Amino acid sequence: MAQPPKYLTGDSAAINDFIDKFDVFLIDCDGVLWSGDHLFEGVVETLEWLRSKGKRTVFVTNNSTKSRAEYLQKLKKLGIPGDVEEIFGSSYSAAIYISRILKLPAPKNKVFVLGEAGIENELRTENIPFIGGTDRNFRREITPDDFQGIADGSLLDPDVGCVLAGLDFHINYLKLSHAYQYLRRGAVFLATNLDSTFPMNHNFFPGAGSVVVPLTNMIGKQPVALGKPSQAMLDAIEGKFQLDRGRTCMIGDRLNTDIKFGIEGKLGGTLAVLTGVNKKEDWEAEDAVAVPGYYVDKLGDLLAGAQ
Amino acid sequence: MAQPPKYLTGDSAAINDFIDKFDVFLIDCDGVLWSGDHLFEGVVETLEWLRSKGKRTVFVTNNSTKSRAEYLQKLKKLGIPGDVEEIFGSSYSAAIYISRILKLPAPKNKVFVLGEAGIENELRTENIPFIGGTDRNFRREITPDDFQGIADGSLLDPDVGCVLAGLDFHINYLKLSHAYQYLRRGAVFLATNLDSTFPMNHNFFPGAGSVVVPLTNMIGKQPVALGKPSQAMLDAIEGKFQLDRGRTCMIGDRLNTDIKFGIEGKLGGTLAVLTGVNKKEDWEAEDAVAVPGYYVDKLGDLLAGAQ
Repeated sequence: MAQPPKYLTGDSAAINDFIDKFDVFLIDCDGVLWSGDHLFEGVVETLEWLRSKGKRTVFVTNNSTKSRAEYLQKLKKLGIPGDVEEIFGSSYSAAIYISRILKLPAPKNKVFVLGEAGIENELRTENIPFIGGTDRNFRREITPDDFQGIADGSLLDPDVGCVLAGLDFHINYLKLSHAYQYLRRGAVFLATNLDSTFPMNHNFFPGAGSVVVPLTNMIGKQPVALGKPSQAMLDAIEGKFQLDRGRTCMIGDRLNTDIKFGIEGKLGGTLAVLTGVNKKEDWEAEDAVAVPGYYVDKLGDLLAGAQ
Repeated sequence: MAQPPKYLTGDSAAINDFIDKFDVFLIDCDGVLWSGDHLFEGVVETLEWLRSKGKRTVFVTNNSTKSRAEYLQKLKKLGIPGDVEEIFGSSYSAAIYISRILKLPAPKNKVFVLGEAGIENELRTENIPFIGGTDRNFRREITPDDFQGIADGSLLDPDVGCVLAGLDFHINYLKLSHAYQYLRRGAVFLATNLDSTFPMNHNFFPGAGSVVVPLTNMIGKQPVALGKPSQAMLDAIEGKFQLDRGRTCMIGDRLNTDIKFGIEGKLGGTLAVLTGVNKKEDWEAEDAVAVPGYYVDKLGDLLAGAQ
């Protein structure tokens, strides 16, 4: 194991040292601030305290089902103050990548979306044409006519040049069949993120990875992923917020996304919280995917223990 | 590359040598006999010719959507003579495995099925209790109550001890969520087969693997697979037909299922046909997953070229 992480809960000197090291905190949401609709204790007060000390807080989420504007509503509903510019989601990251880096030439620049409204809304803000997504015409059982039309191409849109896959609560055989055919015909393969599971109601449900891996398995190649731990996302965050990586800390619950993201991005620090997916045993394991620099039982421990 | 395969099309001496080497032909169906509802030329005559020479023909299929009885209907509809005892499918293989090898003690012996009626029918013939499958209650969108009840376990059946995943044209988020929770709670993880794609209408669609891999990815472990190339299937076939492996030949279109199945099972020979998934380039590639002993352009070439 790498250097073991420093445990901050209840250690006021260590907490104050930690806080002083950073100007910016990139904060994962699900599993750190809340689980489902349950806000963790002390979160709001801790965020306000960090801001009162002049720290910048940026919410970095792989959840692609909500656009930044929708995510802000979720923050507000839970009583977390914030601004849309403080939110950086994988859908936004994907939209930015498509419009500013991929730049597919028209007319073959349409995106076939596997995912929810969050992806569609971010694509709209970047004026990217798309099909699929929440369209009711794709939320149904596959028919013999579909099999025929998908197979011979008559039901496919010749202008699709990219498949973007994210968490889709309405995933079905018809959508997977379309996405696979577009990929077979050469469409660029993108994913908002690859999280295998999605935290919800204090448990776990299928994540974006569950939508992406059938395609990866069929087509035999990996997508470009635009969420954590992809460094494409960190580059975009750095560009937008002009942050100093050495004075930036990533806070998250997942070793294979959040903590890996911070370490590979050479951030000044990483802080794990134990309110989400990973536990202490996970970074103590010999084959640990990443080891955080610090950890607390829960985010609220930063404020509670600092005084 | 291993020894290159012998090309039999049009070579009557080579075909007759080949036929004389074997008593039993294990024959894959999709991509060998037909594609979708299209029967390939010369198939019926070739099967009749093999039988007239005293050869046993066994149809070995990874297609789990049909039971053996339903598969026989498909054969008959296409004009292929056969008997239910000549058919060996991955659903049947899975049912046999559950009832005769796994033998889960009651009451925790229910199977949660991701798949179509073929799986259910084979489970019924072995008196295996199951839920899920084609039940309309699972063919719908997930609701907030589902999230809650799946997360807290109140909507889960405590008697489920096994998850069996196969090709499901009605795959959805609700079913994947249930299957994942049962696996998290320790259910045995089985798959009828792992084919990434499914041949249909002269093209390819998502296969059983597309239903299985999200679960594999979430739970972090592989299922026991009961279809080709799993040797569990060949053991079952050998037990049922009392065949001499050295005098048995596997005929198929897929290197990673059919041909691998025959080679790993130490059968006397393997014959590839070019009417399905794989092409000549695939076994000529340096990283070829398996190289057949023989190949023909299509199955009908055996009879056409023999005379």
